[in-house]
Amino acid sequence: MFVSALLTSVGINSAICFSFLVLYSIFRKQPAYYGIYIPRLVAEGKTKQRSDFNLERLIPSANWMKKAWMLSEEELLSSSGLDAVVFMRIVTFSLKVLLFAGVIGIFVLLPVNCSGDQLTNVDIVNISNNSLDVFTISNVKDGSHWLWFHFSAVYLITAYICSLLYYEYDYISSKRIDYFCSSKPLFHQFTILVRAIPASAGRNISDSVENFFTEYHPSTYLAHTVVHRTSKLRGLINDAKTHYRRLVRLQSNPSQINSNRGSCFGLFRRKVDLVDRYGKRLGDIEQHLRLEQSQVSSAGKEVPAAFVSFKSRYGAAIAMHMQQSNNPIHWVTEQAPEPHDVYWPFFSSTFMQRWISKLGVAVACFLLTALFFIPVLIVQGLTNLNQLQIWFPFLKSILTITFISQILTGYLPSLILQLFLKMVPPVMECLSSIQGYISLSDIKKSACFKVLWFTIWNVFFATVFSGTALLQLSLVFEPKTIPTRLAVAVPAQASFFIAYVVTSGWTSSLSELINLFALISSLVTKPFSGNSDEELEVPSIPYHQDIPRILFFVLLGITYFFLAPLIVPFLLVYFGLEYIVYRNQFINVYAPKYETGGKFWPIAHSCIVFSLVLMHAIAVGIFTLKGLPLASSLLVPLPILTLLFNDYCRKRFLPNFSAYSAETLIKKDRADENDPTMAEFLDKLVTAYADPALMPVSFTATADSLRRPLMSTAED
Amino acid sequence: MFVSALLTSVGINSAICFSFLVLYSIFRKQPAYYGIYIPRLVAEGKTKQRSDFNLERLIPSANWMKKAWMLSEEELLSSSGLDAVVFMRIVTFSLKVLLFAGVIGIFVLLPVNCSGDQLTNVDIVNISNNSLDVFTISNVKDGSHWLWFHFSAVYLITAYICSLLYYEYDYISSKRIDYFCSSKPLFHQFTILVRAIPASAGRNISDSVENFFTEYHPSTYLAHTVVHRTSKLRGLINDAKTHYRRLVRLQSNPSQINSNRGSCFGLFRRKVDLVDRYGKRLGDIEQHLRLEQSQVSSAGKEVPAAFVSFKSRYGAAIAMHMQQSNNPIHWVTEQAPEPHDVYWPFFSSTFMQRWISKLGVAVACFLLTALFFIPVLIVQGLTNLNQLQIWFPFLKSILTITFISQILTGYLPSLILQLFLKMVPPVMECLSSIQGYISLSDIKKSACFKVLWFTIWNVFFATVFSGTALLQLSLVFEPKTIPTRLAVAVPAQASFFIAYVVTSGWTSSLSELINLFALISSLVTKPFSGNSDEELEVPSIPYHQDIPRILFFVLLGITYFFLAPLIVPFLLVYFGLEYIVYRNQFINVYAPKYETGGKFWPIAHSCIVFSLVLMHAIAVGIFTLKGLPLASSLLVPLPILTLLFNDYCRKRFLPNFSAYSAETLIKKDRADENDPTMAEFLDKLVTAYADPALMPVSFTATADSLRRPLMSTAED
Repeated sequence: MFVSALLTSVGINSAICFSFLVLYSIFRKQPAYYGIYIPRLVAEGKTKQRSDFNLERLIPSANWMKKAWMLSEEELLSSSGLDAVVFMRIVTFSLKVLLFAGVIGIFVLLPVNCSGDQLTNVDIVNISNNSLDVFTISNVKDGSHWLWFHFSAVYLITAYICSLLYYEYDYISSKRIDYFCSSKPLFHQFTILVRAIPASAGRNISDSVENFFTEYHPSTYLAHTVVHRTSKLRGLINDAKTHYRRLVRLQSNPSQINSNRGSCFGLFRRKVDLVDRYGKRLGDIEQHLRLEQSQVSSAGKEVPAAFVSFKSRYGAAIAMHMQQSNNPIHWVTEQAPEPHDVYWPFFSSTFMQRWISKLGVAVACFLLTALFFIPVLIVQGLTNLNQLQIWFPFLKSILTITFISQILTGYLPSLILQLFLKMVPPVMECLSSIQGYISLSDIKKSACFKVLWFTIWNVFFATVFSGTALLQLSLVFEPKTIPTRLAVAVPAQASFFIAYVVTSGWTSSLSELINLFALISSLVTKPFSGNSDEELEVPSIPYHQDIPRILFFVLLGITYFFLAPLIVPFLLVYFGLEYIVYRNQFINVYAPKYETGGKFWPIAHSCIVFSLVLMHAIAVGIFTLKGLPLASSLLVPLPILTLLFNDYCRKRFLPNFSAYSAETLIKKDRADENDPTMAEFLDKLVTAYADPALMPVSFTATADSLRRPLMSTAED
Repeated sequence: MFVSALLTSVGINSAICFSFLVLYSIFRKQPAYYGIYIPRLVAEGKTKQRSDFNLERLIPSANWMKKAWMLSEEELLSSSGLDAVVFMRIVTFSLKVLLFAGVIGIFVLLPVNCSGDQLTNVDIVNISNNSLDVFTISNVKDGSHWLWFHFSAVYLITAYICSLLYYEYDYISSKRIDYFCSSKPLFHQFTILVRAIPASAGRNISDSVENFFTEYHPSTYLAHTVVHRTSKLRGLINDAKTHYRRLVRLQSNPSQINSNRGSCFGLFRRKVDLVDRYGKRLGDIEQHLRLEQSQVSSAGKEVPAAFVSFKSRYGAAIAMHMQQSNNPIHWVTEQAPEPHDVYWPFFSSTFMQRWISKLGVAVACFLLTALFFIPVLIVQGLTNLNQLQIWFPFLKSILTITFISQILTGYLPSLILQLFLKMVPPVMECLSSIQGYISLSDIKKSACFKVLWFTIWNVFFATVFSGTALLQLSLVFEPKTIPTRLAVAVPAQASFFIAYVVTSGWTSSLSELINLFALISSLVTKPFSGNSDEELEVPSIPYHQDIPRILFFVLLGITYFFLAPLIVPFLLVYFGLEYIVYRNQFINVYAPKYETGGKFWPIAHSCIVFSLVLMHAIAVGIFTLKGLPLASSLLVPLPILTLLFNDYCRKRFLPNFSAYSAETLIKKDRADENDPTMAEFLDKLVTAYADPALMPVSFTATADSLRRPLMSTAED
């Protein structure tokens, strides 16, 4: 790839980004799009529904940027929870790392690379004629002593990142404890989930649980809720909801009906008939539902799992940490999620079921990763212009046009790749959900992990080894050759990844801002439904989609900064955009639905450690290839030290991310003892974990209350 | 190796074994050797010290064998604890596996191998002229359908071993719980060890511990004992003990002095002087010791670690399982060992110290394994007669003598190897002791694990890849080639390992019985010290030396039974011997010093699973080499299934080997509530974990009481 192609790509994307920013600053001021751009503010009632037109609305402004920039961490914490803070800290962490890498890369390594003459002399007069390789390490002469600059850069950045990682882990870990200490009593702090409750003859699950916990935890046990198999019920409820929604929609526009009454009374008549029919159907479903509910509530459909609540946090923690029964796969305990975070649909309860579904999901993930190669291969073919001309000879005339060929090489491939990648997070989320997790937050966390490794494997490794894509698995079986093979393949793809950052990266952060999908669907559906405002739903941020993307770009930054420092400025622009965009989104769009208490950080930490070790492996290979074996040998301790550092961090901080200490729990319990509202809280706790599918339903009653005005209108 | 060479080796070893058995049955009846052969019976006072001579004593008898055979598991459990039961169950497990393997190997695979003609036709007339290879899988024709018998054998034995493993794990796991439930209250059940106690300003460790546990465990906390740095004290105590022993030896034979009085009064005079001098030295040391003790007891030399005792087992377990402090590497808790099991000398207390020493020991183990190659290489050279003739041409004439060459190839190499291997367990024990374990039993367990992998690596792999010994490490870097390389190398060493079983195996179990080392040292020192009976010490069985040996022979059996079934009968003889010998040793020799509660079984379990997977890898390679790729492919699921089985067992049984369940602990605590002796027990518990080096000493008082009669003799 030549500098000119890169510049074309940068030009197109800058233009797109700028126009997106302008469009956004206009669109967000239109009340019609409040539901897309500021749903959170609308839901919180913080915005005035100005329907009067004024000119100011059409003038783009950067006011929102200023607001996003001014947001402090305390404000973010109080408004969006610790997860949002951790998310923003991952972004700022990346910015810090890339700023450091950028200073070294641009001011030290880039001049060294350019002054080399391994490939060709730099064409200083017409810089756009240079191959991008001139700016990479490939241009440094083999065995040159200038390579020691690269060597020092590797050591320096490793030390810098590790110290930053330590500081960050420490900070987030203490934030997590502070957040817990300052929280008001929450149901899940007092509750554990018990699975694999053994069946005992002549006794139902509920009695078994009651007996077990009154026997072994008499002083702390409060209450329990047995889980029921409610998949059929949920189907009925969804059915009822659909009918209810249709009914409401039919009844909601009496004004519209009134205005049309004269002209189309027949139509109105038919509508009343429809309302009656839906009402009857709804009544039938509701009756069926009530019957089914009473059946499920009886002992027959109990799942051997229960939420067990305790009188104190410490009591719940003791029951969770101790192995309860002599058979370790019975009475398996874990921390319960918040009631609204429980993922009811898939409630595998026995140890065996969970073990098998875990294995099944692992196999499915592996297959997904393997099958994903096919589109990637096609995409890789597209980046190769000669290949394309061989495949489609009739395109030859078109492909010779410089502009088109530049678009093809610089833009299209990564766009296609990104479209494919867009489908991965939902698939992974689905896989995680059948893996046996019981909370939405755990599912997202697990999906985040899956998507991350999928991205690294399928974008990084598949691209790097594009020539031998399907053979990349053989790497696993020949670990000795990894550094050399990486050293050959990774620098060769530098220009692809620079283009990838510009296209995929920049565009993705702006499309996050402008939310193109929602905008288009709103534009399409708007004319047909007038009442979209009523169904306004505040979304929560899809961490499992955004965190892997950010971490992947950090990985690119860390692995490429010493090979092709030119990538760093583009990454800095990307992270700068992300920084502003996500702060804005947290203010205006996303509201937290659940809170993991910063559990996404350990994933980010291990990904960055992986990036470091990968970078070391590449560096070892590069220095060997470049005829500097001493540097290779001197680099060997670095990955070992990094892994030791990681091991230390795991021991020092990770336990705090899975449970709280006795010290914290007891202090918090004692503080609550004097709280007069605790009695009321414990009363609520007893019924907090009831399955929503078993709640009493009253769609018809609500529908009737809505129908009455319509009927009176009809009888007018 | 030819059948004749093997027969020579078997002949020699059978003769040695038989003579050892005869010698043992005579020696064990001589009162002079009671200290070697029945120290346990002597210590328990179960034997009459018959000093009158009778003829029966010189006639060998097999009575001891009958007694050993009759010993029931209950008797073994009550006399030697659960560890002895687990040890014997490992032996019987091996016997069961090898019986099954033997039936398949001898009656199905051996005829198939012999009927092949890949190598040469069997010389039926003179069977000893055949190479041993005729009996191995190498003799089956490439691509022959007879190989499906071997394939089925691999599947069959895997299924058999896995079901046996499951049954055994289940049995031992429940035995462990029963053993705990039937035990009387033990100090360590109520105690935890807390390490890495953070220093707080103006407060010593003892106060910190007191404050922390009265604050957070007010209802269950009983008492604590802070650990002190007492290495200097221990040196002084050893010094004092040496002097005391010398003094006692000088004073112990007044009768002897009396008889010689007339002839050598001067000598007696000198002796009294000596006694005075030693007495004075002892007094000085003791004074110094008392001073040092009072200094150490004061706050200055406290180690930030303490034994904390609780009023109930459940209370101790809660404190152990919960993370105590917000900093997970402070207030680190673990189960305390029994007081007499505590390993006082090396008491690393901070997290960092332990982490670093663990890493250091890992590196040391690696180096030991790597350096051990050198003697093994020499030994491997010896097995190769031609090599020897090239190295030492002057030996040529001797080496041509059939008998000598047969001894050399069949016997000497494995003997030398075994002598080297004898040095490994103590070294590994030493390494384990500096790794930060706090109990002797943990040190043995860790040493057992280290010795096991050392043996597998240095005996199995080093022998198998003898041609490229130092290159074997490259295996790790080329995992894909493992099956093929194993398939080439492993069958080639079949004859060596058959000889190894006969020499090393048979001899080792008999030398265990006859305890050659103790016998010789007793024969040498007997004439010079008349009072060895007084210092009789009942040894405890060196599990870290015996379990790895047994498991290594099981590994040989599992990996070779389908390659060279001829190995199985020899292994059966070996395990038969072990069975009788160790049962006899448990009755007569070894007394348990500590009890891990069967924690050695998980090591045995994982070793056998490793053997299975190794066997599968070899089989995959063999079937590929033998031109039956379908069989290879069909074998691939087998290791995966085995590892899944192992994973299941880890989850199902392993937790029971690290801690007891809430159910068990609470039941046991409740049973104790009505026990009137509990108050007394708790009183004792408060001081149970005092460092023996800080106990009051009174050597001089004891020595004085011994000296008085001597003085009166002198003044006569």
